[in-house]
Amino acid sequence: MTFNLETSNNRIFKESFDSISRIVDEITLIIDTEGLKLTTLDRSHITFIIMELDKTVFDEFECTTPEKICIDVNEFMKILRNVKSNDILRLNVDEGNFIVTFIGDATRKFKLRLIDNDYEPQVPPKISHPVKISIPSTILTDALKDMSIFSDKLQFLIDENYLHIRSDGEFGDTNTEYLHGENILTTACSTFGIDKLTDILRSSKFSNEMELELGDDMPLKLTLKLPTGDGILQYLLAPRIEQED
Amino acid sequence: MTFNLETSNNRIFKESFDSISRIVDEITLIIDTEGLKLTTLDRSHITFIIMELDKTVFDEFECTTPEKICIDVNEFMKILRNVKSNDILRLNVDEGNFIVTFIGDATRKFKLRLIDNDYEPQVPPKISHPVKISIPSTILTDALKDMSIFSDKLQFLIDENYLHIRSDGEFGDTNTEYLHGENILTTACSTFGIDKLTDILRSSKFSNEMELELGDDMPLKLTLKLPTGDGILQYLLAPRIEQED
Amino acid sequence: MTFNLETSNNRIFKESFDSISRIVDEITLIIDTEGLKLTTLDRSHITFIIMELDKTVFDEFECTTPEKICIDVNEFMKILRNVKSNDILRLNVDEGNFIVTFIGDATRKFKLRLIDNDYEPQVPPKISHPVKISIPSTILTDALKDMSIFSDKLQFLIDENYLHIRSDGEFGDTNTEYLHGENILTTACSTFGIDKLTDILRSSKFSNEMELELGDDMPLKLTLKLPTGDGILQYLLAPRIEQED
Repeated sequence: MTFNLETSNNRIFKESFDSISRIVDEITLIIDTEGLKLTTLDRSHITFIIMELDKTVFDEFECTTPEKICIDVNEFMKILRNVKSNDILRLNVDEGNFIVTFIGDATRKFKLRLIDNDYEPQVPPKISHPVKISIPSTILTDALKDMSIFSDKLQFLIDENYLHIRSDGEFGDTNTEYLHGENILTTACSTFGIDKLTDILRSSKFSNEMELELGDDMPLKLTLKLPTGDGILQYLLAPRIEQED
Repeated sequence: MTFNLETSNNRIFKESFDSISRIVDEITLIIDTEGLKLTTLDRSHITFIIMELDKTVFDEFECTTPEKICIDVNEFMKILRNVKSNDILRLNVDEGNFIVTFIGDATRKFKLRLIDNDYEPQVPPKISHPVKISIPSTILTDALKDMSIFSDKLQFLIDENYLHIRSDGEFGDTNTEYLHGENILTTACSTFGIDKLTDILRSSKFSNEMELELGDDMPLKLTLKLPTGDGILQYLLAPRIEQED
Repeated sequence: MTFNLETSNNRIFKESFDSISRIVDEITLIIDTEGLKLTTLDRSHITFIIMELDKTVFDEFECTTPEKICIDVNEFMKILRNVKSNDILRLNVDEGNFIVTFIGDATRKFKLRLIDNDYEPQVPPKISHPVKISIPSTILTDALKDMSIFSDKLQFLIDENYLHIRSDGEFGDTNTEYLHGENILTTACSTFGIDKLTDILRSSKFSNEMELELGDDMPLKLTLKLPTGDGILQYLLAPRIEQED
């Protein structure tokens, strides 16, 4: 045993991996004395994901030596889908398996085969965005449903007062305006694929608020933070840069 | 701007158009100083729909000149599906667009292209039914599910005491009896397609009660009235007249 | 009329037949002065079902002469699916039909054609199991979902202290351990198909507890009893006996 993690807050895993499992096939989890983290990039190099859970997220956190394990994230999500809200979630390893245990009326143990790989975790690109606002997660989940009526892409535009989300199509166009209440002195505008954003927002219940960082034709940075301040889930989404119509 | 309508009762639109959008593809809305109305007939000339919402249904109602606008009702329904229960719904137009706005935590505006057409709204046929009763909407929605087990058509029969709804099939038959409590001195009996009735009853939550008018081999008239008395949604459904088996 | 049965506890029928209708196509119901019962075996001779409802399960129970009727169980289930929780359920027969009536705001009567057949009801095999425990139904329904992640079969193993449920697959394995708290002095172990168990457990709400009887490579006996003690639903499921891997 090189690590043993336990948390009653199994919701965090269920919600973040519901999104992650739609974006990538395999992930490398890094468990060290600080906590659990992962960084990953999808095959098409469009969505970068960073997840960091400090050890304080866990009721029990032991890690004798840092460990990197690679797993099939779809199989992991199939397991997480079966967790019950009151179950304690335990994570550890043996020779060759990632062990996920749900402790409730019964003890339900899942051994997921580890995947051999020797590639290094992706290093997140450093990007400095000109504009950053905080919005309720529901603003974005509602807007995505609206935008998908007429198109498969949408535009974010942040100005001094508003976040504008827009899409255009043959049969109509739609526009969400949200008064952001932040001190913004410039504007920023980029276009993104609705499918990719929909995958990302499967994790929207990770936190009620999201930080949204934007630039002109730059990647979108979306950050969800646990209210307790000891965990983040972050996405960098490449823009769709297209010819003017 | 020729009209501007606002209501907090967005439910009325969501429920009526859930039905209308399954029956017709395009509709002509007429907005004048009295309110909003539409009359339409499906392609196969089986279902006639009339909707009339008096201006008192709206919290704000302005109409400078009467207006007739034609829209794709499926696109309109896709928009209405996204309204949240507390949103204020605003309806107006610009050059070439029907504008639907949801006002909540954000302001969500949808511009739906107007359709050119110069045909006159359908005039509803005048039919005088020998029998008219009022029944809870659930009696009809339950019966439809029952009748579809054995057949694709059903028979309504009203006599002095009961509404009978019947269907027959190879594997069985079924029969709903509802004591109507009305003063009926004759009987009336007609047969209708279950599919068409199912489309109509998507709007069953428009009101808890329905008026049902029936004759022998005559169209069924179903009328749903807002409890406030200032809006109706009415359907005329052609009977299925068939050879005796 | 040879029998007339009425119960406000329509849930019993809805839940048991949701399972039965997935296992067999036709059933023979036996109604006599004691109550209602059925015994049946699926086509592939894997699942044997016994249901016995004493007359006290019914608010009204009349049976002038014992009756055996054969019906299509899928058609019966389509009808039961439409029952409302407060409806009184009435069962009787006429010449050629099984009559199911729901009595609520309306009276909804279904006549289901009787099927001619002259085969005798199946006699349940007498099996004496070395091990018998009682477990909450949810333990089994949770475990089935878990086991289906990695395989299409599972193993039950009961020892002195625990019920172990296990499955193995290419990508992982899983194991539920439940402390049974019974006085068991031996062990028993058998393997079963997950699909067949899933069909059986559609009736898991028939009672909160299940009796589970097991032997080595013997059929599983699962018994659900009404809390009032006057009804049982019992399954015998043949084991999957396979070569050692």
